[in-house]
Amino acid sequence: MEKAQKTADALPSWKDGEAKERILNFVKNAADSASKNYIPPAERIAVFDNDGTLWNEAPMLFQVSFMFDRIKSLAAQNPDWKTQQPYKAVLENDHEAMKKFTHQDFGKLMAASHAGISPEEFKAAATQWFDTAQHPVYKRPYLKCVYQPQLELLNYLRENGFKNFIVSGGGVDFMRAFAEKTYGIPPEQIIGSSAKTTMESKDGKPALMKTPELQSFDDRAEKVSNINLHIGRRPVLACGNSDGDLNMLQYTAAGTGPNLEIYIHHDDAEREMAYEKHPLMGELKEGLVEAKAKNWIIVSMKNDWKKVFPD
Amino acid sequence: MEKAQKTADALPSWKDGEAKERILNFVKNAADSASKNYIPPAERIAVFDNDGTLWNEAPMLFQVSFMFDRIKSLAAQNPDWKTQQPYKAVLENDHEAMKKFTHQDFGKLMAASHAGISPEEFKAAATQWFDTAQHPVYKRPYLKCVYQPQLELLNYLRENGFKNFIVSGGGVDFMRAFAEKTYGIPPEQIIGSSAKTTMESKDGKPALMKTPELQSFDDRAEKVSNINLHIGRRPVLACGNSDGDLNMLQYTAAGTGPNLEIYIHHDDAEREMAYEKHPLMGELKEGLVEAKAKNWIIVSMKNDWKKVFPD
Ligand SMILES: [Ca+2]
Ligand SMILES: [Ca+2]
Repeated sequence: MEKAQKTADALPSWKDGEAKERILNFVKNAADSASKNYIPPAERIAVFDNDGTLWNEAPMLFQVSFMFDRIKSLAAQNPDWKTQQPYKAVLENDHEAMKKFTHQDFGKLMAASHAGISPEEFKAAATQWFDTAQHPVYKRPYLKCVYQPQLELLNYLRENGFKNFIVSGGGVDFMRAFAEKTYGIPPEQIIGSSAKTTMESKDGKPALMKTPELQSFDDRAEKVSNINLHIGRRPVLACGNSDGDLNMLQYTAAGTGPNLEIYIHHDDAEREMAYEKHPLMGELKEGLVEAKAKNWIIVSMKNDWKKVFPD
Repeated sequence: MEKAQKTADALPSWKDGEAKERILNFVKNAADSASKNYIPPAERIAVFDNDGTLWNEAPMLFQVSFMFDRIKSLAAQNPDWKTQQPYKAVLENDHEAMKKFTHQDFGKLMAASHAGISPEEFKAAATQWFDTAQHPVYKRPYLKCVYQPQLELLNYLRENGFKNFIVSGGGVDFMRAFAEKTYGIPPEQIIGSSAKTTMESKDGKPALMKTPELQSFDDRAEKVSNINLHIGRRPVLACGNSDGDLNMLQYTAAGTGPNLEIYIHHDDAEREMAYEKHPLMGELKEGLVEAKAKNWIIVSMKNDWKKVFPD
């Protein structure tokens, strides 16, 4: 008979309380073949948003910081950028000009920083950036700006036979540069926004090339479509932090068996940041209303977490 | 130290010979941490085409047979089809008319048989079909028209820590209806052609709906793009049976570590069918030339397999 892994201190950075209790109960029952809320191993699919759910996203999405730094590192090879917008604004840290960036401007910066190279080369560039860049507020590497309680949750789920997937609006190649090492989530369990790739010949060998053409913007209902495309099974646990995750949580909640929905609420102005609506980040508004109405777990970062970041 | 699982009779339906020997050696070394051809577990990614590689595809792709049968089963709800092409031809088994089907005709039949329902409903319909339909030539269920030697290969790879993926031109939802049960390959390891889905409300619950709009035609270079999108890691073993798989094999062969490329050659007119070029199936021409030039394994179904289908 299958029994849950022992839960003593499974989530040491979570304070005792309703959120922790409900998570522990759900997982314990899912892995206990004697429980009426048992879930067969193959169906233990958990999906997590990334930005603001597994790591910090403020004051700017990490991938945007990476994009700006990469534009700077490519400037020497692109002398025209000194006088051309939107590149010029990035090179000069011209925040006033940046505030006026249009979608087209962002598209140009994405193309210049994310396309025209192979996924392998891109991942190498991202890895190098993670090794060296510092978060502007917390003055620590970006990979130390993940949420310690969430690392514990991922690990606890994995130990109890869950397969964790990331389903994020972030770029899939960007996430694959760190998620295996940092979250223990292998590349084949990462779903994100993506650009089309083409097969080309490079140094006489076949290689893929990232193009500027968007393939999928993995947000809202497209998260659900991508879950179906990549996983092909309805998740039993979904965790997010914004209205962009609401469809994914609704879809999970509509499953016929046991399921758990979790919203991470950024209410910790002291240790992180308190926001529900922020011009640069996803808003949490409809999601919060529905979470309350449906008794989903709303994790207060302030009250439910002993610590936010790893030591 | 990691050692390969014992190989005695690992591939009982494979005749002794070069193909079997090379496969056994590759896997043995991949799983032996003392070997210079060792492959770390996370990198043991194997990709398989499906039609003509894992199961029979003649005289007609199984999914096309399913499509025709489904059109027939839906005819009562669509009385106009009796007088409308291309439905009329299908309902009347009018092979002369079918031969003249255009891409548009197939598109209409695909839409009528594959769209407007949820992936779950579609999978239920496919499952029911698999439970009842018979192969026109072999007079046995379609799921008994898989290749026994390939079932053994999938199992042998899995036992030695490989993660098997299907990368097929076939529809992803169609394959997910049987691949877990038949091949031991879970839905999240199946990549195929796909249609776009939309999120809708059904009986007051959020549900996905399959649309007629093509999302990906998973053939040739798109197989490689989809491997990158879904797996994010270059495979170390690739197996196919047509030129549609050539890019996938080339991409695998261009890896920097140990890798193995396998073509299944349909040369067994007695037990199955002998063809390299067939109007309805993928052609194997360029692939055969390249396989010979690069010393990839070319499996002769006639000479390398003791049996073709399971008992
Ligand atoms: Ca988010
Ligand atoms: Ca094929």
